[in-house]
Amino acid sequence: MSININCDMGEGFGLYQMGDDEAIMPYVTEANIACGFHASDPGHMHKTVLLAKSYGVKIGAHFSLPDLQGFGRREMKVSREEIFDIVLYQVGALIAFLDINNLTLNHLKPHGALYGMAARQQEIAEAIADVAEHYQVSVFGLAGTLHEEVYKGRGLDFVPEFYADLEYDRDGHLVITRSHDVVNPSVAAARCLRAVMERKVATVEGADIDVQVSSVCVHSDTPNSVEVAKQVREVLSPYMPATTK
Amino acid sequence: MSININCDMGEGFGLYQMGDDEAIMPYVTEANIACGFHASDPGHMHKTVLLAKSYGVKIGAHFSLPDLQGFGRREMKVSREEIFDIVLYQVGALIAFLDINNLTLNHLKPHGALYGMAARQQEIAEAIADVAEHYQVSVFGLAGTLHEEVYKGRGLDFVPEFYADLEYDRDGHLVITRSHDVVNPSVAAARCLRAVMERKVATVEGADIDVQVSSVCVHSDTPNSVEVAKQVREVLSPYMPATTK
Amino acid sequence: MSININCDMGEGFGLYQMGDDEAIMPYVTEANIACGFHASDPGHMHKTVLLAKSYGVKIGAHFSLPDLQGFGRREMKVSREEIFDIVLYQVGALIAFLDINNLTLNHLKPHGALYGMAARQQEIAEAIADVAEHYQVSVFGLAGTLHEEVYKGRGLDFVPEFYADLEYDRDGHLVITRSHDVVNPSVAAARCLRAVMERKVATVEGADIDVQVSSVCVHSDTPNSVEVAKQVREVLSPYMPATTK
Amino acid sequence: MSININCDMGEGFGLYQMGDDEAIMPYVTEANIACGFHASDPGHMHKTVLLAKSYGVKIGAHFSLPDLQGFGRREMKVSREEIFDIVLYQVGALIAFLDINNLTLNHLKPHGALYGMAARQQEIAEAIADVAEHYQVSVFGLAGTLHEEVYKGRGLDFVPEFYADLEYDRDGHLVITRSHDVVNPSVAAARCLRAVMERKVATVEGADIDVQVSSVCVHSDTPNSVEVAKQVREVLSPYMPATTK
Repeated sequence: MSININCDMGEGFGLYQMGDDEAIMPYVTEANIACGFHASDPGHMHKTVLLAKSYGVKIGAHFSLPDLQGFGRREMKVSREEIFDIVLYQVGALIAFLDINNLTLNHLKPHGALYGMAARQQEIAEAIADVAEHYQVSVFGLAGTLHEEVYKGRGLDFVPEFYADLEYDRDGHLVITRSHDVVNPSVAAARCLRAVMERKVATVEGADIDVQVSSVCVHSDTPNSVEVAKQVREVLSPYMPATTK
Repeated sequence: MSININCDMGEGFGLYQMGDDEAIMPYVTEANIACGFHASDPGHMHKTVLLAKSYGVKIGAHFSLPDLQGFGRREMKVSREEIFDIVLYQVGALIAFLDINNLTLNHLKPHGALYGMAARQQEIAEAIADVAEHYQVSVFGLAGTLHEEVYKGRGLDFVPEFYADLEYDRDGHLVITRSHDVVNPSVAAARCLRAVMERKVATVEGADIDVQVSSVCVHSDTPNSVEVAKQVREVLSPYMPATTK
Repeated sequence: MSININCDMGEGFGLYQMGDDEAIMPYVTEANIACGFHASDPGHMHKTVLLAKSYGVKIGAHFSLPDLQGFGRREMKVSREEIFDIVLYQVGALIAFLDINNLTLNHLKPHGALYGMAARQQEIAEAIADVAEHYQVSVFGLAGTLHEEVYKGRGLDFVPEFYADLEYDRDGHLVITRSHDVVNPSVAAARCLRAVMERKVATVEGADIDVQVSSVCVHSDTPNSVEVAKQVREVLSPYMPATTK
Repeated sequence: MSININCDMGEGFGLYQMGDDEAIMPYVTEANIACGFHASDPGHMHKTVLLAKSYGVKIGAHFSLPDLQGFGRREMKVSREEIFDIVLYQVGALIAFLDINNLTLNHLKPHGALYGMAARQQEIAEAIADVAEHYQVSVFGLAGTLHEEVYKGRGLDFVPEFYADLEYDRDGHLVITRSHDVVNPSVAAARCLRAVMERKVATVEGADIDVQVSSVCVHSDTPNSVEVAKQVREVLSPYMPATTK
């Protein structure tokens, strides 16, 4: 068993900041880097790639619907063909910054509304799978949803995520809030450890459900995200890939 | 001696069209494809790459300042570092569409205001050269200007362009008009042939000046661009690379 | 009875053109002017306001979801509060161009996906009604849908539209195509006349349905839109407001 | 003599925050509200207008070049006509939010690169003056520059600003830094008081120069901006308009 910790990174835009990437990067092993459609711009992408590289953190493309003003959190009606092109464009742009720094793409992770759409709409999941297949990289998602089915059905490497700083309901769905609230870091860390060891999490309704986890996601815009990432890293350290210890 | 014909392509955006790419593509050998910053979007890029491929036309990145509303024709104050990242982002995005179609990048050509800035501002020319060096591709430009000096100085392959549908003044500068006017196709073709054979062009003032030309540029948004491209192609055909005849 | 002819106008963007506003303006009595979110920019808005003014054409705000790349045709999940602010912003911007030309706002007409959303989602229709109420102007829409109910329920002036260049199905819904096809101008004109005189239209299935019409909409991006507008204007001329004859 | 304190406000965008408007608003008397071209969006504009209203703060339009990614700080080549339309659009949008809250526009203040361009390029200053004239509102700027000359020459009310948190050089120019640094609040307050009482400020070179001031500008993105605003307010309180004391 080998567990990673991933985090959405590089979500600033122009003069705007989002999250404290420099403080969190030391605690994660996989950075999902924004590609300019929900956040970021060429300068932020380059800076974030260099930051991840300096900590030996693997880099995935965190692509989105084209909606800067809505931070990629507003669903849009788009076709499979449209999404394929939108995703390919963003992934290609990120790869340029990886390539120039002698790095390679590690994984794909759709952002925001597109993440949810990929978990429910086959056409969207297939479009993302088309890109993953081309680059032969893994795709992150929620176990037990349509995108797991689509990605695995096509022989792709599906990485089930567990969210350190979000609650689950009895159906295994994440309880999404518009902005991320403060979470108790030690409670979050303990939840992650249990998810990894016992494959269980307590839901907001109280009962336990089964979960799968290959990578734990922490959010850089949770207000106390650095402390959460730090404690999650501490408890999961024994289960992490040797190279990242 | 081997002469190419290049044309800016894929400059539509969403439902908007610009130029008749399908009608012109048969007459060119090099397509400069817009990358989404002055024109185009992921869908248009993909479609244009496929169109060029179907005619065996070589593909270059036609990147721009970030200014869709101004079609990349308004100069902006930007640093070398900013431009490097902006160019790399756009080139990377285009490469993704090339790569998925088993094509490779042939050249770089800055668009609009950035083309002019690269011809005059060293920092801008150096930033573009940084990207060209990384990808080991040629860069298009005007002979006798700063960017020729910078690119050649760095050992890059500089491709001097001759403009089929624009006038030159006594200093070898292009007489730029806000929108492209109708030109007489046979006059344009004859001018191109003379530029190739004699390395001379008559200026708006009347006298001849020397010109260099490895690739002739036609514009798809010149009103009668298809006829211009067709006649230019006819006269230059004997001087074009064997594979494109 | 008094019938108007309305048309979406000013849908260019930067160097891009959409439709031939100058050719169509003489045949319409109400121009729905794009406000920069699905099409247009400040320069196009100003030019289009002046063009409408020169023909004595009344001006309405043709506002949209924020989606230039998708031309406002991709549905997005937005709240009532978000839409209210988005609509108010666009209407305010248009009013500045009206005001400086001593004109006043005549009506509101949501564009594209937002038009359909307003016809089906109460929160969206209410948000638009909030803006209409503030400016005390009429709102255009399809009779028999939720937005008619909402606007009328709030005492607003609802203007039912009949589409000259689109087909209806048995449920009174428009048969929307991604791009507008060529239509036979005399058939379209006859359909409009019948809709005005008999309040009937033949559906794609063959049978007649009842329709309501206070304003007939023609589209400037239908390929032969000028001829359609011209013939519709001719047949409806006897039923149009005195000042516009 | 009556002195105001102005501050750039409402410069968030989507989920991004810039400055702590809620903390600073109590200390200012004039808010320059961003209009969506360098920062802000319809939702932020509405919220900021309501915040200013709740403190009885007068509201001006803080319009910009169209450059969200560059926060309006990159100069662009634009014509007088283009800028007039761009400014009018933004001012109109803001007025909609004022109007719906029974407020009126108090002044105009160009943002960032446009502020500097207006101080040096006559065409730009004239375009802004055209808009100010239409709305019959004052325009903020630096005394001793071209825009003062243009605005006053046209009989407009020019409001000379003094910058609380920026240094001046011997020529009366502001020493602009890319991001605003921490300033000592009591030093800044004392500088402002002296500028108001003696019309003098010490330059970075050491000597005094004359300054004019009708409104003191504080920046919400100076790191300790709230404390600066608070102390400036305290010392200037005796010189402020009765209604704002």
